Amino acid sequence: MCRVVPTRLSGVTGNLRQMTTTRLEAFSDGVFAIAATLLILNVHANSSHLGQTLVRAWPSYAAYAVSFVTIGIMWVNHHGIFAQIDKVDRTFLMINVFFLMSVAFVPFPTFLVADHVHDPGLKVAALAYGFTLTATAVLYNLLWFYAARGRHLLRDDADPRVVSGITRSYLPGPWIYLAATLVALWRPAVSVVLFAAIAVFYMVESALFGRREAVSA
Amino acid sequence: MCRVVPTRLSGVTGNLRQMTTTRLEAFSDGVFAIAATLLILNVHANSSHLGQTLVRAWPSYAAYAVSFVTIGIMWVNHHGIFAQIDKVDRTFLMINVFFLMSVAFVPFPTFLVADHVHDPGLKVAALAYGFTLTATAVLYNLLWFYAARGRHLLRDDADPRVVSGITRSYLPGPWIYLAATLVALWRPAVSVVLFAAIAVFYMVESALFGRREAVSA
Amino acid sequence: MCRVVPTRLSGVTGNLRQMTTTRLEAFSDGVFAIAATLLILNVHANSSHLGQTLVRAWPSYAAYAVSFVTIGIMWVNHHGIFAQIDKVDRTFLMINVFFLMSVAFVPFPTFLVADHVHDPGLKVAALAYGFTLTATAVLYNLLWFYAARGRHLLRDDADPRVVSGITRSYLPGPWIYLAATLVALWRPAVSVVLFAAIAVFYMVESALFGRREAVSA
Amino acid sequence: MCRVVPTRLSGVTGNLRQMTTTRLEAFSDGVFAIAATLLILNVHANSSHLGQTLVRAWPSYAAYAVSFVTIGIMWVNHHGIFAQIDKVDRTFLMINVFFLMSVAFVPFPTFLVADHVHDPGLKVAALAYGFTLTATAVLYNLLWFYAARGRHLLRDDADPRVVSGITRSYLPGPWIYLAATLVALWRPAVSVVLFAAIAVFYMVESALFGRREAVSA
Repeated sequence: MCRVVPTRLSGVTGNLRQMTTTRLEAFSDGVFAIAATLLILNVHANSSHLGQTLVRAWPSYAAYAVSFVTIGIMWVNHHGIFAQIDKVDRTFLMINVFFLMSVAFVPFPTFLVADHVHDPGLKVAALAYGFTLTATAVLYNLLWFYAARGRHLLRDDADPRVVSGITRSYLPGPWIYLAATLVALWRPAVSVVLFAAIAVFYMVESALFGRREAVSA
Repeated sequence: MCRVVPTRLSGVTGNLRQMTTTRLEAFSDGVFAIAATLLILNVHANSSHLGQTLVRAWPSYAAYAVSFVTIGIMWVNHHGIFAQIDKVDRTFLMINVFFLMSVAFVPFPTFLVADHVHDPGLKVAALAYGFTLTATAVLYNLLWFYAARGRHLLRDDADPRVVSGITRSYLPGPWIYLAATLVALWRPAVSVVLFAAIAVFYMVESALFGRREAVSA
Repeated sequence: MCRVVPTRLSGVTGNLRQMTTTRLEAFSDGVFAIAATLLILNVHANSSHLGQTLVRAWPSYAAYAVSFVTIGIMWVNHHGIFAQIDKVDRTFLMINVFFLMSVAFVPFPTFLVADHVHDPGLKVAALAYGFTLTATAVLYNLLWFYAARGRHLLRDDADPRVVSGITRSYLPGPWIYLAATLVALWRPAVSVVLFAAIAVFYMVESALFGRREAVSA
Repeated sequence: MCRVVPTRLSGVTGNLRQMTTTRLEAFSDGVFAIAATLLILNVHANSSHLGQTLVRAWPSYAAYAVSFVTIGIMWVNHHGIFAQIDKVDRTFLMINVFFLMSVAFVPFPTFLVADHVHDPGLKVAALAYGFTLTATAVLYNLLWFYAARGRHLLRDDADPRVVSGITRSYLPGPWIYLAATLVALWRPAVSVVLFAAIAVFYMVESALFGRREAVSA
């Protein structure tokens, strides 16, 4: 049923443009869910002196939490933009594949950061983590701007205020992450704290943005 | 089709409040399914003397079963509360992200418990396992109470008796898990047995609650 | 939309009985998909002399294929029985959780068999693999018979011939797997070959059963 | 809702032929998503001298990217053919299981290639990678030709030009991959570069094909 209507539409137009976004979202949700859940595989604990080990392993829990929440926020926002989109084309699908590629990459630099909090490797680890999130934010904007360009993939009844609200709120993302990343060149620890702070900021901002939307109704 | 109706609704209201819960559930189910399935990665067996090894590895099978059933029960209940909810907002989505973060964390303490059943590390492992489940139960209640507060995310036709039945049955959860966790300070083994007993209890209670619902119809 | 109709129904009856099976299937599909895909994690290769290593590693490819196809068949059949079911209750959900627990366990004994093809551990490994599949087949029948008992979870228009056809075709499963498992006590290698043969048999039988259904229309 | 309609239909015909393709796609998407996401587990980094290590580890990032994009393209195309298909039968489901088995196998040869870029093992690794992708392409064609044979699983309103366009564009796949694979017998490095080039080619071709479709409307 989910497919009969859109496929009938696409039978009329003879292309994929009108296809439902349901499946793209299902695939994306799968990658979001798996990337987030795989983070736990990087949480380890040496068996001897379990107590001290678990205490000393706090960076891996912190890294798990920050990355899980970061991926969670990306998912919430992906959810938000797809409330405005009801068409896809193959170029859009490929942009989404690249976006998901960067999301699925997050567990690796997360592990690096957790693993090097106490040694000089933290600088490189923080740069790897930061550039991954910067790339993710760039691809995220690319995804949105491709869809919003001339509104060609947006719902006909997409509220212009909501659309421009999304545009305004996503544009700074790459610059914020890039700035936090470059801080690692001088102060890796500060950079890592900034990544956590950005996650908290976006959580709050997301809630506020949700309210703004409600107000704008 | 799955999306056309809700997005049209959200087009009318210009916010996410009316959005279908379908996608939130799909993402949540992904995390539930992955967290449950990843548990098997912690079931190991040393190659030499396979027979004895497999027999000695019983704690890892038991831990696999208890955690899988525990996650399964959480899924069944998540299923149950979403039969009462038909709206989401961004705050609710973020609470769900934190809830899923604790669900996805379960495989780690499960591994710790299985790995330390025969050594003094069991106390710390049982505490780690118990606090994870306690946190999960707290976030679970937070998810439900946020949705039920003033019924603002509930279906208009949500049966008040079912709603209060859910409230009654979830409130004790955190306290039950906290109590079983604190027992680990004196008797780690008893604590672990209690976690298994709670899983069995919730399975039975869940079936009874299901029947109560039917009766209340 | 997928949920509005069933939840309205459940609003009328005040219980979960009438709930759509969509979400149960989504969760189950997640576990099927993950359990099948995780099998690859057990396919390893020692780096030195890669050529010979890959050749000597044939048992792990064979085990991967047999278990993937076996899980695939379970999925196809799960698909088949849910074409007859349109209601769930909490007991049914819990039986499904136990069924999925056995499906998600398959990667572990699969690894054991692949790892011990060339040593005496094969007997124990084959027994572990066989008992896992036997338990899965038992839970599978339990799932079906619980749903079909008095047709209480079946669609009103479920074709009695299809229902009895499913019953006839699933009943022998546990006995077939149990027999192949016990063979391992005397001839582990023969037992492993039988597991592969059963997978092939069910593939063919499934196709034939599909045709029989068509004929019975 | 997603199921009520198709199951009613299948109640009428008494077989699976008319069943919605929704669940097959959900399961397939799960495997696509997991296989793609698991690729990250093969991206490692030795802790000492993290900087140099991460630089020297470029082959694993390249392999991650090529395989992720390759799986992403398969998903986009799977998406495309299912816009033409609205029926399944058990034989088709089994072909899809074998197709997914080859998709889920990709992470293993991907790891081999990344691990042997700098040593003689690259020849065998490239052959393993190439034969996996060749098998995937063969099964992919099998899936499409089984569905398109006499149009017996296609939508009644499937555009003949789109159908023949898909046929034309998938037929060369296995030969292209086989050729790139055999090159590894003489020049493994060239073969690996070709696999990357094919991924890029298909991305562009896919976008062009999407446009062609639009034109053909």
